Amino acid sequence: MTQKKPLILVTNDDGITAPGIRALIDVMNEIGEVVVVAPDSPQSGMGHAITINSTLYCDPVIINKNAPQKEFSCSGTPVDCVKMASREILNRKPDLCVSGINHGSNSAINVIYSGTMSAAVEAGIEGIPAIGFSLLDYAMDANFEPSKKHIKAIVKNVLKNGLPKGVVLNVNIPKLEESEIKGVKICRQANAHWVEEFDKRTNPMGRDYYWLSGKFINEDKGEDTDEWALHNGYISIVPTQFDLTAHHFIQELNNWSLNG
Amino acid sequence: MTQKKPLILVTNDDGITAPGIRALIDVMNEIGEVVVVAPDSPQSGMGHAITINSTLYCDPVIINKNAPQKEFSCSGTPVDCVKMASREILNRKPDLCVSGINHGSNSAINVIYSGTMSAAVEAGIEGIPAIGFSLLDYAMDANFEPSKKHIKAIVKNVLKNGLPKGVVLNVNIPKLEESEIKGVKICRQANAHWVEEFDKRTNPMGRDYYWLSGKFINEDKGEDTDEWALHNGYISIVPTQFDLTAHHFIQELNNWSLNG
Repeated sequence: MTQKKPLILVTNDDGITAPGIRALIDVMNEIGEVVVVAPDSPQSGMGHAITINSTLYCDPVIINKNAPQKEFSCSGTPVDCVKMASREILNRKPDLCVSGINHGSNSAINVIYSGTMSAAVEAGIEGIPAIGFSLLDYAMDANFEPSKKHIKAIVKNVLKNGLPKGVVLNVNIPKLEESEIKGVKICRQANAHWVEEFDKRTNPMGRDYYWLSGKFINEDKGEDTDEWALHNGYISIVPTQFDLTAHHFIQELNNWSLNG
Repeated sequence: MTQKKPLILVTNDDGITAPGIRALIDVMNEIGEVVVVAPDSPQSGMGHAITINSTLYCDPVIINKNAPQKEFSCSGTPVDCVKMASREILNRKPDLCVSGINHGSNSAINVIYSGTMSAAVEAGIEGIPAIGFSLLDYAMDANFEPSKKHIKAIVKNVLKNGLPKGVVLNVNIPKLEESEIKGVKICRQANAHWVEEFDKRTNPMGRDYYWLSGKFINEDKGEDTDEWALHNGYISIVPTQFDLTAHHFIQELNNWSLNG
């Protein structure tokens, strides 16, 4: 008697041809039946955006003709890809959704800007166990090899244990050789933020425009944060939720005089 | 001795000319010194997206030449507007950021897709007390009058009491006459989701495309949710946070065998 392979949906925000998603597909092909639905262009920083004021295209593509996975290229955001996959492409609910491997960190507050993590969160909202993977290396030729065995172990644990309703995993991997990675740490999201530095320029028509850039500031000294783990050679896993209610502040708010 | 008026940053996601932001500006002009930095086009459903792969324009505009506020129209997302305002436009940190009034609900899981609320969250990340306001009426000619006195009361409370670090307010207002609004309720985010219904069409060149639409499903029967409050004639306020850590799951995750 053969056991049915788990169905794994793979997506990302760097686009369907990015080396990071190719590495993730390789690992997932060792574990289950893989379907890829990913953006046709880079969608970094798209957060939880969805496409409601324009149309969406989603077409089957063959990127590696010897590979076993089915692939679809979608004109929308990472969150659109997950919605499209679960509603239009897959004929059953996937056992897992993995997003990434992102080229660059999604630790700390970056989780909120991240298309990679928003795709995982969207899968979580739909009741699909989901994990976002990111490597702390923005380069297109980043080395994803050292992370592969850790990704495999994390995915196998999630397939075996499941995840509680309302929780997805945010996994960040330091830019280190395999022998330098000290292991995996369960963390909380570091309390950090960006300080913007707009680069102001003038276009050939004389009109001013800006490029958004910034400096990442981590003022959180806690040794239980993702930032600490990553700086100390560990892979960080932050369990991440989408109930945004600040439950701790409800009682105090009830004392305010709000009925105008 | 005169007390300095509070500096209030106003933004939204429906665009700088939407009736909802005009109503919010009216109320804020009664309370403080108002600066508007808002998108030059509709940005609904943009979530926490930021513009990193293209350029941003941000120009002063005059929409009502007799009005006291300064206004700037920005080519980016609602989150870009807040970043642009705090870094390039305002010469001091605002005392408050208000976003909206959104044409349509941002209750329950809608908070995560909402450009309106993401602008408020971004202000919160930057340490600015922030509130998102939404009216449960998508119509362009929605009646914002009944909500004005409640918005004023909520804003005055926030200016007086402040908000704890890491918390912003998500305020939703039912589509009711002033006499029908029963008051304000502090709530938690209802556990609800969307079931997508893609509308598949064929373009004149014969290629299939989709429009994203869907049905909102609330399976949360709790009487402490925003959905319950809104359906029962109350304005809902959900204190909303951006530490997404699922703290309750950390202990169990530590028992997993994750070191592959």
